[in-house]
Amino acid sequence: GLFFFSLISFLFFLFFSRRFTGKYVTEPSAMFPFFQDIQVMLVVGLGLLLTFLPCYGLSVLTHNFLLLNFSMQWAMLLQGLLHHFHHGQVHLGLRNILTAEFAAVTVLISTGAILGRTNPCQLLVMATCEVPIYLTSEWAIITYLGVLDVGGTITIHVFSCYFGLGVSKALFRAAQQPVHPKETPTPRSDLMALVGMLILWVFWPSFVAVLCQPGDAQHRAILNTLLAMSASVVTTVVASSLMERDGKLSPGHLQNGSLAGGVAIGAVADMAVAPVAALALGSLSAVICLLGFRFLTPLLARKLSLQDQCGIHNLHGLPGLLGAAASAVAILVVPDVTAGYHFSATGGNATEALCQAMGLVGAGGGSLLAGLLMGAALRLPCLALPPQRLCFDDSLYFKVQDEDPSIPSNNVLRVSPLDRH
Amino acid sequence: GLFFFSLISFLFFLFFSRRFTGKYVTEPSAMFPFFQDIQVMLVVGLGLLLTFLPCYGLSVLTHNFLLLNFSMQWAMLLQGLLHHFHHGQVHLGLRNILTAEFAAVTVLISTGAILGRTNPCQLLVMATCEVPIYLTSEWAIITYLGVLDVGGTITIHVFSCYFGLGVSKALFRAAQQPVHPKETPTPRSDLMALVGMLILWVFWPSFVAVLCQPGDAQHRAILNTLLAMSASVVTTVVASSLMERDGKLSPGHLQNGSLAGGVAIGAVADMAVAPVAALALGSLSAVICLLGFRFLTPLLARKLSLQDQCGIHNLHGLPGLLGAAASAVAILVVPDVTAGYHFSATGGNATEALCQAMGLVGAGGGSLLAGLLMGAALRLPCLALPPQRLCFDDSLYFKVQDEDPSIPSNNVLRVSPLDRH
Amino acid sequence: GLFFFSLISFLFFLFFSRRFTGKYVTEPSAMFPFFQDIQVMLVVGLGLLLTFLPCYGLSVLTHNFLLLNFSMQWAMLLQGLLHHFHHGQVHLGLRNILTAEFAAVTVLISTGAILGRTNPCQLLVMATCEVPIYLTSEWAIITYLGVLDVGGTITIHVFSCYFGLGVSKALFRAAQQPVHPKETPTPRSDLMALVGMLILWVFWPSFVAVLCQPGDAQHRAILNTLLAMSASVVTTVVASSLMERDGKLSPGHLQNGSLAGGVAIGAVADMAVAPVAALALGSLSAVICLLGFRFLTPLLARKLSLQDQCGIHNLHGLPGLLGAAASAVAILVVPDVTAGYHFSATGGNATEALCQAMGLVGAGGGSLLAGLLMGAALRLPCLALPPQRLCFDDSLYFKVQDEDPSIPSNNVLRVSPLDRH
Repeated sequence: GLFFFSLISFLFFLFFSRRFTGKYVTEPSAMFPFFQDIQVMLVVGLGLLLTFLPCYGLSVLTHNFLLLNFSMQWAMLLQGLLHHFHHGQVHLGLRNILTAEFAAVTVLISTGAILGRTNPCQLLVMATCEVPIYLTSEWAIITYLGVLDVGGTITIHVFSCYFGLGVSKALFRAAQQPVHPKETPTPRSDLMALVGMLILWVFWPSFVAVLCQPGDAQHRAILNTLLAMSASVVTTVVASSLMERDGKLSPGHLQNGSLAGGVAIGAVADMAVAPVAALALGSLSAVICLLGFRFLTPLLARKLSLQDQCGIHNLHGLPGLLGAAASAVAILVVPDVTAGYHFSATGGNATEALCQAMGLVGAGGGSLLAGLLMGAALRLPCLALPPQRLCFDDSLYFKVQDEDPSIPSNNVLRVSPLDRH
Repeated sequence: GLFFFSLISFLFFLFFSRRFTGKYVTEPSAMFPFFQDIQVMLVVGLGLLLTFLPCYGLSVLTHNFLLLNFSMQWAMLLQGLLHHFHHGQVHLGLRNILTAEFAAVTVLISTGAILGRTNPCQLLVMATCEVPIYLTSEWAIITYLGVLDVGGTITIHVFSCYFGLGVSKALFRAAQQPVHPKETPTPRSDLMALVGMLILWVFWPSFVAVLCQPGDAQHRAILNTLLAMSASVVTTVVASSLMERDGKLSPGHLQNGSLAGGVAIGAVADMAVAPVAALALGSLSAVICLLGFRFLTPLLARKLSLQDQCGIHNLHGLPGLLGAAASAVAILVVPDVTAGYHFSATGGNATEALCQAMGLVGAGGGSLLAGLLMGAALRLPCLALPPQRLCFDDSLYFKVQDEDPSIPSNNVLRVSPLDRH
Repeated sequence: GLFFFSLISFLFFLFFSRRFTGKYVTEPSAMFPFFQDIQVMLVVGLGLLLTFLPCYGLSVLTHNFLLLNFSMQWAMLLQGLLHHFHHGQVHLGLRNILTAEFAAVTVLISTGAILGRTNPCQLLVMATCEVPIYLTSEWAIITYLGVLDVGGTITIHVFSCYFGLGVSKALFRAAQQPVHPKETPTPRSDLMALVGMLILWVFWPSFVAVLCQPGDAQHRAILNTLLAMSASVVTTVVASSLMERDGKLSPGHLQNGSLAGGVAIGAVADMAVAPVAALALGSLSAVICLLGFRFLTPLLARKLSLQDQCGIHNLHGLPGLLGAAASAVAILVVPDVTAGYHFSATGGNATEALCQAMGLVGAGGGSLLAGLLMGAALRLPCLALPPQRLCFDDSLYFKVQDEDPSIPSNNVLRVSPLDRH
């Protein structure tokens, strides 16, 4: 099963090794605490958030961890080749690793749409293709169009969401998937996922603010993100209890709605907007996220037979669209919102707002198209989908003991003759 | 059930939105790593510590998270209105969010006394009232009396403990509560709570030292807290094993005793005391905490029919009293202990020590009185207590699946005809 | 059972208290974020990694926590007495606490070899003896021989591994131990251990880089560690799936192999080696670690009847040897690898490389000998080993409820008459 995966890994390693003989760039370590926060988010927080599938915890943690490292190395290699080629030698610093990690984030998000019904080889092939597409898209949006998006709302969240949905649509082309019995979270797996969400929630401001200009802009980004995410939490609880007839909360709503504010605030985080705007944006994005779970996901599944396992469209897609729209509005309405940027002189506010909209459309449309092609490629017979019966189950990829006969007490008694004391 | 809650949330939101149109204050980001540590403590660590109730994990994590965010926003709003009113415009910075978070901590601690037998509406009403009372009390103790309390031993721990006990006494006025079958921790829930304690333990020095003067005082505060908490751990294990006849440890003792040193050290953390004093204080507070669990809590439950679900009196009350007493002694005994403070010139050491004692009495007595009134108010019929039968159970507030028939294997076989591969 | 333990603790406390009356050293707090990262690693990450024993979670978390604090205080006391004696007064700063924590790490690693079959008294006696041996060994290797080992590959990992193996060999001298039924991890305990590994993985760069010269060397150490550990992850997954016939992964391989790169990189982390060397070292150490689990551990158990509960020889021993060899090669091959060091002028590169080899042999051989003596001493009848039947079980040290009859529903019904509402 994992043979193909090992092959491409070794190939990349060889390639990687030959090229990466450069020296390290020197730079101050002010970025290091932010970097560690982001590592905790991606490795521990995101991994635990995905363990809501009760029998699939080992697999999601491992796949998440493997994809993060594989994509990061692959992105680092590509960036080294592309961007620094004309310097004659490849340079490497903490900032390069960080931008490579952002490329890896898109892979991790896209994976959410097809989680549990795919095998690791397919995920690695997807990562291999998604990273260069992301790098191209990011270059086009940020460098070419000059879109303002410090927290990656458009370049990361919208892009990876529609890429993932495209893959899912093309890969599971056929009819609706039946609900798998192991898809339903248990209270215990919901608890683990909730802890993962809390870790993501705590460190999200670091994710948004790490690439800001140190000083005022970074401080603003931290505060705006804190306010938006705090508003999301309160709104999520209220909205989730209002949405059900008996006023009970849904763990899934909590796990996603509380983070929606962080997705939406990314594009405006470092702008000089009023705190109330950050609060409103956080609140609104939580509402949109929950409405998506309640109405849009069932609709898409019924009409388009679109599979979205983790609801990435509700957590990354809809709040991302909202955040991008908010950034365009902020640029139009607030007079000196982009005062701190070099390239704001190149055009009026209306031009800049148009750029944001174009960036959004480009990111969404382009990635959807690329995702559809990707998904079609993943249907190749050499990349067999795991059988439906074995989906969402660790035992497909791990040597695990059965837990049911968990250490019966007569077993303990049986070893007592061996007692040497 | 959650209707009232949603109503007041929206009201606050409206109010919040109208007022908070100020700009952000500029400030250096040296405080940000400390702030993140404190966020981890409160969101992840405290949440997990409370999951010792085996069927109530989702609820405690969610209530803790919701109350933290709600109280923080509410405190931020009140502080903005009160303290900065004369500047014409509300200013906002990381320091404001931090002090608002300290106000929220008092709510989270007080909640510990009534955990599991109350509904979220009652908790939100309590938060709404406790935050302004805390802000008043904190102003009176720190600004008016000039009490030295950098780690919040008096203003946070003693205050919130007696407030919570007052609420519990007035709310569950009647006879003794029977032991609920779901109150007893299982090994698994004890493990989760232990992990929560470890997270709190690791980040506690940041909590104590964040508001110190950077430099010497902050370094002293970090070291003193580390020593006190390290001494607490060793003492807790020794004392817990001595307290039981068969020398076995109690997980509950470990979860609380290890943190007692951090509570007690708060008032003296930045003073120039000898390391041995920090060690002794940590040790002593752990002993007092465990003695409280062993003897005082059963006594209070029998004589006063006082309900203290998480033992906050043992973790926050008794070590808080000890720490406050230690600060008065330190001021009296050590000659230049307050050398670094501006306001030490306003009175002799004896006056200052008296202030500490007055602050302690004021915080304890005032909060107890306020808590009793609060608890009486929470008995209002519109805020119905959850029925005894459904206490300590997630299913009252969450849509959860039953875990008992956890994916029987014949279920898996049943879907095999659906297998498409 | 725990009487002896309490006795020595109190003795140390008395001793500690009398001596430690010095003042704190003043120093900048740039080290504090690194220090917090390391605390998380040791307290939360390492604790969780050891919870792979399904019925022994509370015990490993507590023993790990207790040993860390006890050893740290003991090392701090010894260091204070030894190193700073000639200054007349004991000084104390964050750096002292950090080096004391490194001494505690050796105890925690050594414990891994005898985990679950020993009682806390034995572990504390071992800690008491290992700390001074480590301090002597570290002085001899670093200060006397001038070995370059910024990440503790030789002084910490190799030393503690062979010390632990020596203890295990001498303590369980007799025949092979039968496989205990509670030794086998369940999927749930594997999941917890995996989370622990992820936490260790994330914060490992802080562990390696904390004592580097700030600036270039520290930046290099962070990057090299990141690359090595990232390579370890990918290689571990590939190698683990290749090693089994059906291509399934073993959770134990993942938990250890992913960290092997961090162990090996320690000795060369701050040298000016090429990134590709860090990647290769990380990959190679992961392969060696897995080969050790697959072939060497069963061989040692069969031939030498050597017990290595957590496989510390595969995680710390073999990658440590590899890292030390790599550091000698790096010194020989790379011309200006030690340019930044003061003491590189005292000898040529060949001398320095010889020193590395001598340090490695000294650390390994000396600690193995000391461990054998230690293990023989731990067989004293006053330190009774726990009976085989009760090994790997929390109920020996903790008052825990049985989980099997987990809150039967008729229990809940029984309390319904008590319902007051």
